[in-house]
Amino acid sequence: MSRPTMMPASQHAAGAFDIGSALSVRLACRSGALKGTTSGLAPGFVQGNLAILPADLAGDFLRFCQANPRPCPIIGVSDVGSPLVPVLGRDLDIRTDFPGYRVWENGELVAETGDVGQYWRDDLVSFVIGCSLSFEEALLDEGIPLRHVERGLRVPMFRTSIDCVPAGPFSGPMVVSMRPLKAAHAIRAIQVTSRFPAVHGAPVHIGDPALIGIRDVSQPDYGDAVEVLPGELPVFWACGVTPQSVIAKVKPPFAITHAPGCMLVTDRRNTEFAVI
Amino acid sequence: MSRPTMMPASQHAAGAFDIGSALSVRLACRSGALKGTTSGLAPGFVQGNLAILPADLAGDFLRFCQANPRPCPIIGVSDVGSPLVPVLGRDLDIRTDFPGYRVWENGELVAETGDVGQYWRDDLVSFVIGCSLSFEEALLDEGIPLRHVERGLRVPMFRTSIDCVPAGPFSGPMVVSMRPLKAAHAIRAIQVTSRFPAVHGAPVHIGDPALIGIRDVSQPDYGDAVEVLPGELPVFWACGVTPQSVIAKVKPPFAITHAPGCMLVTDRRNTEFAVI
Repeated sequence: MSRPTMMPASQHAAGAFDIGSALSVRLACRSGALKGTTSGLAPGFVQGNLAILPADLAGDFLRFCQANPRPCPIIGVSDVGSPLVPVLGRDLDIRTDFPGYRVWENGELVAETGDVGQYWRDDLVSFVIGCSLSFEEALLDEGIPLRHVERGLRVPMFRTSIDCVPAGPFSGPMVVSMRPLKAAHAIRAIQVTSRFPAVHGAPVHIGDPALIGIRDVSQPDYGDAVEVLPGELPVFWACGVTPQSVIAKVKPPFAITHAPGCMLVTDRRNTEFAVI
Repeated sequence: MSRPTMMPASQHAAGAFDIGSALSVRLACRSGALKGTTSGLAPGFVQGNLAILPADLAGDFLRFCQANPRPCPIIGVSDVGSPLVPVLGRDLDIRTDFPGYRVWENGELVAETGDVGQYWRDDLVSFVIGCSLSFEEALLDEGIPLRHVERGLRVPMFRTSIDCVPAGPFSGPMVVSMRPLKAAHAIRAIQVTSRFPAVHGAPVHIGDPALIGIRDVSQPDYGDAVEVLPGELPVFWACGVTPQSVIAKVKPPFAITHAPGCMLVTDRRNTEFAVI
């Protein structure tokens, strides 16, 4: 692999597990050997974000995601109380297979842990949500440079003036990620990411940030600042931080999310998610 | 048809022929009943631009077009000396089936006529080149507004600093057409026109006109000026005027082109040219 990764593999306990295999990454999470980011691990395999909610909120949250597929593309949902999501991996265990979790009560962070077994409840429903790593891999494969990747930064993310379609208690602004691109790369990036509607799809905006309520593109609300150089356009994609920010606003009695950068590595291949 | 056309049908001798049929438009050209633009006629059918050159230049011109498929998408070529292009229409006669022609000698316009039969030579090769009307129809079908269409103007066109790939004596800058669009429409337009690589395909540039050598976007080199409103991006597509401007530079001993706006209506449907 000559492709740049979001974080050098050397920051992981390389050798402790096979970074080329989705199952081996999950097993490393399960054993505690991997506690850091999954970015750059198991290239080619879909990674997912996590939202776990009690069943009495899960229906509304599912409706919210289905009404807002660009920021909230669901790639797997568990049965009530089940820690399994077989569509994403045969032996996958949602309680242990992320490197890190955050546990929330009434909107307050109550624990950060690598195993949520002790917090498990029979009424929990797990949502695994598609992640921009999938389409970034496709962009890098096309030779489109991504500045935050080249500089080892997190992608800059912004709250926008675009309102999500509300469902039950869930509502709020769409969060977007921004990648500065030259025009020709922006056009190609629109083509490439249009093939991946299940992982955010095409951009939601291009050009003037103020038109979607972003006052200062050098001051992201999440992630790291990445400069837009002369001759580049800022290109904005709907972002998987949206559902987390919406959940934070609702302050549910109980919720679990993944820790930032600590995604689930699934057995699905990114290429499977291309519609063409 | 509620779709806006580039020129009101009432400007044509409506009733003299069936504007819904490609063959009837060609027959109206052949009989001399139609002398004006073909814009808006025979909706759904591909229209083409024309370049006719002597055989000793045709090989280089064909190489030029194949090296520059975005501005010069060839949709049909005749045999040497033949006025027929059967792939575009069963009975099509290239000498009579355009409403108007321009005849050139050494780069000078020597005649403007509705029938080039008297100029025909056994060494001529005819090139029919795809036209933006095809993708504009697809954009309008998507509900994407096109200002020049709404205002009954010709699309604004610009010489750029993008050099075409030269072939033999043929070389020169790419000419582009510009359509101002809101960001969401621009993104959708990139998706829609990407389906039509045989008729210019996706845009070649979006945003700052200066980056492709356009000093003043309100001063087109061809066509009519169309304003870019606040909140809009100028979107630039490779334009079929490119091959004509390249031929004009070479000043071949003899050439025939279509008169502006007077295209060939073929039996091929625009939808046939969509790759997906």
